[in-house]
Amino acid sequence: MRCEVVAVGTELLLGHVVDTNSAWLGERLAEAGIDCHFQTRVGDNGQRIVAALGAALARSEAVIVCGGLGPTPDDITREAIAEVMGGALERRQPLVDAIRALFEARGRTMSASNERQADVPRGAEVIPQTVGTAPGLVCPVGERVVYAVPGVPAEMKEMVERAVIPDLRARAAAAGETAVIVSRTVRAWGITESLLAETLAPRLEALDAQDSPVTMAFLASGMAGIEVRLTAKAKSEGAVRSLLDAEESEVRASMGSLVFGVDDQTMEVVVGTLLVRHGLSLGLAESLTGGLVASRLVSVPGASAWFRGSVVAYDSRVKRHVLGVPDGPVVSESAARAMAEGAARVLGADVGLALTGVAGPDPQEGVAPGTVLVGLTVDASTEVTRVQLPGDRELVRQHAAMGALDLLRRHLSERPGASGR
Amino acid sequence: MRCEVVAVGTELLLGHVVDTNSAWLGERLAEAGIDCHFQTRVGDNGQRIVAALGAALARSEAVIVCGGLGPTPDDITREAIAEVMGGALERRQPLVDAIRALFEARGRTMSASNERQADVPRGAEVIPQTVGTAPGLVCPVGERVVYAVPGVPAEMKEMVERAVIPDLRARAAAAGETAVIVSRTVRAWGITESLLAETLAPRLEALDAQDSPVTMAFLASGMAGIEVRLTAKAKSEGAVRSLLDAEESEVRASMGSLVFGVDDQTMEVVVGTLLVRHGLSLGLAESLTGGLVASRLVSVPGASAWFRGSVVAYDSRVKRHVLGVPDGPVVSESAARAMAEGAARVLGADVGLALTGVAGPDPQEGVAPGTVLVGLTVDASTEVTRVQLPGDRELVRQHAAMGALDLLRRHLSERPGASGR
Repeated sequence: MRCEVVAVGTELLLGHVVDTNSAWLGERLAEAGIDCHFQTRVGDNGQRIVAALGAALARSEAVIVCGGLGPTPDDITREAIAEVMGGALERRQPLVDAIRALFEARGRTMSASNERQADVPRGAEVIPQTVGTAPGLVCPVGERVVYAVPGVPAEMKEMVERAVIPDLRARAAAAGETAVIVSRTVRAWGITESLLAETLAPRLEALDAQDSPVTMAFLASGMAGIEVRLTAKAKSEGAVRSLLDAEESEVRASMGSLVFGVDDQTMEVVVGTLLVRHGLSLGLAESLTGGLVASRLVSVPGASAWFRGSVVAYDSRVKRHVLGVPDGPVVSESAARAMAEGAARVLGADVGLALTGVAGPDPQEGVAPGTVLVGLTVDASTEVTRVQLPGDRELVRQHAAMGALDLLRRHLSERPGASGR
Repeated sequence: MRCEVVAVGTELLLGHVVDTNSAWLGERLAEAGIDCHFQTRVGDNGQRIVAALGAALARSEAVIVCGGLGPTPDDITREAIAEVMGGALERRQPLVDAIRALFEARGRTMSASNERQADVPRGAEVIPQTVGTAPGLVCPVGERVVYAVPGVPAEMKEMVERAVIPDLRARAAAAGETAVIVSRTVRAWGITESLLAETLAPRLEALDAQDSPVTMAFLASGMAGIEVRLTAKAKSEGAVRSLLDAEESEVRASMGSLVFGVDDQTMEVVVGTLLVRHGLSLGLAESLTGGLVASRLVSVPGASAWFRGSVVAYDSRVKRHVLGVPDGPVVSESAARAMAEGAARVLGADVGLALTGVAGPDPQEGVAPGTVLVGLTVDASTEVTRVQLPGDRELVRQHAAMGALDLLRRHLSERPGASGR
């Protein structure tokens, strides 16, 4: 079973929006064992959308077309699909009512233009919306099929998971195809991408030499750390998972404590889990990161159980008056120490974690850009770590946030006396 | 002159790497006045690369193919182009020597596999490398042309700027085309995308009816607000700017104070400018946004002149002990008021801005998800605004941050007595 992706939107061609939807769809199709050989981007132009859909249907059994289902006049995917199907659009009153109800549930009035979203090519089935307003479509074209989904990523993903992938898998199973491809991401911190590549080179060569069904790729993604992506293909979910488990063990053996998690075990999730395990609460004091660490932590569901808050002390006076930082330079060991202790005290937390430093591009108080001091207070004992980070202002901030959380992770991992688990 | 983009690489189809090269190429082509109607992604498969190049050449005068020029066996773009040109590859000894010299200059030894990078389709010209090792190619196919550039973004961009865009412009000029295309983004907040579409519908219709060289598109991008993207095409930079100026005036006339900025005047930049103009400093108190507002503000260069900091009071005890929120519910008007006043007092700021609410997905203290209260203290006077936001946890946070900053913007815009400017 082959399925292509056609992403619709002039903003994609003009580079105003990076087409992350197609990347996500490609990944999900691969995981479902569906081959995706071509992906196309086309603008909001009826004739060209029709041409792109036609070319895709000539090569593949299925096409996912993404975008152009909105209420505005440049949203013309519905019309293009109707043309490919050789029929007309028909407005479905129950859909109009459903869209109106969605608006009313939010205390808003539906505008007339939204009625266009209830237009459906004759012969197509509707995929109901649960997040936004534009319904999706399943459109048979002879023995082949076009799925239309919205371009808004959250709406697209929800609809593809719920309706499109299950339908594609059912078609593949009916055709006797049962390959499963699954990827797993091993997450690490504290190593450069090129050093990582050297560390894993022997293993990569071994996989190649064995013509293994497992492939390995690296990605340095700032805020998320270093990712080692393992992908395996097999006949069943069970077989593919065994392959991944074995390969993950190999990677962990090479990388040791640099590895902090797998898949959705992000650094903030891992830190939260460790805090819960030790029954500790966390308070932050942030200077150069300006709230970035706090905003990552609150994205973890249930963070309120262990996260007290943060004092974002961007101004030196806030450092002194709120956190009790003594007179003297604020990018210094003593300031980082006082900030960590102040955070724990002011926020009533067991653990205080503080970041001060110079994001750049200019030096501050004679200190070079990229200099970061991290203070960590646990059990009334404080340690300060100094690091020097490369990159621009934004990258220094991201790496500082990641580095501080990793320090906390290592401290808690080595701490004795976790309560069970 | 039309030029398509073909991005080569199985990792793009599998979603392991997001294809940012095509977005960048699309933007550069548009700025150079070259139309790009289709972009295609294809895996490392010879037959399919040939098919993708053939389809692109059938539709457009030029094609940029990006990736697959490396030294490993899965890099087969050179072979595919040779097949499209109907000739063979020939190894050019001067190129072998140049690549070897590049390795030696970095103190490394060239491996035998790198010699493949000196293979050139008969009849093609070479674009020398200056960053990496893979040379680029200019490959005539009848009257049409295929440019091959590396997939490594830095190498690709340098080569495209230096050799490809100038060659395309020369071809366009020879064909009597000298267009310049420029885009401008008008930024707004406080209106849904569909209501915006209705507001601007008469103007859109007028542009269509006049067959105007200006096009308009809408985009709702969460954190950045609503964007109205104007794109104009004309013979010269000056002419295209006049078109954009005129169209921006039309949009502003329709949308009034919903518009807060243009291009790089993001909400946080505009708020910072207004604070400086009034000589005011800002302190925040954040609950549901958990530091998100602060982390956006510190991304503005020079924020330390007007931003004091934030008390991220995720835990109720922090709200009470640090900010002085009285007993009672913390998602309430009185809590938002006390938080705003507490932020100004604790952080020593002229203006206090506070956010409390329920990000969801579950209600809290019996208050529905999406409920947000924003407190604003200026000149010892406090106002509280209640809003109800749609969307998931992350979207509620982003919209709450944007809404709070917009309230502050409106207050400062209407405030008398700005010092000059």
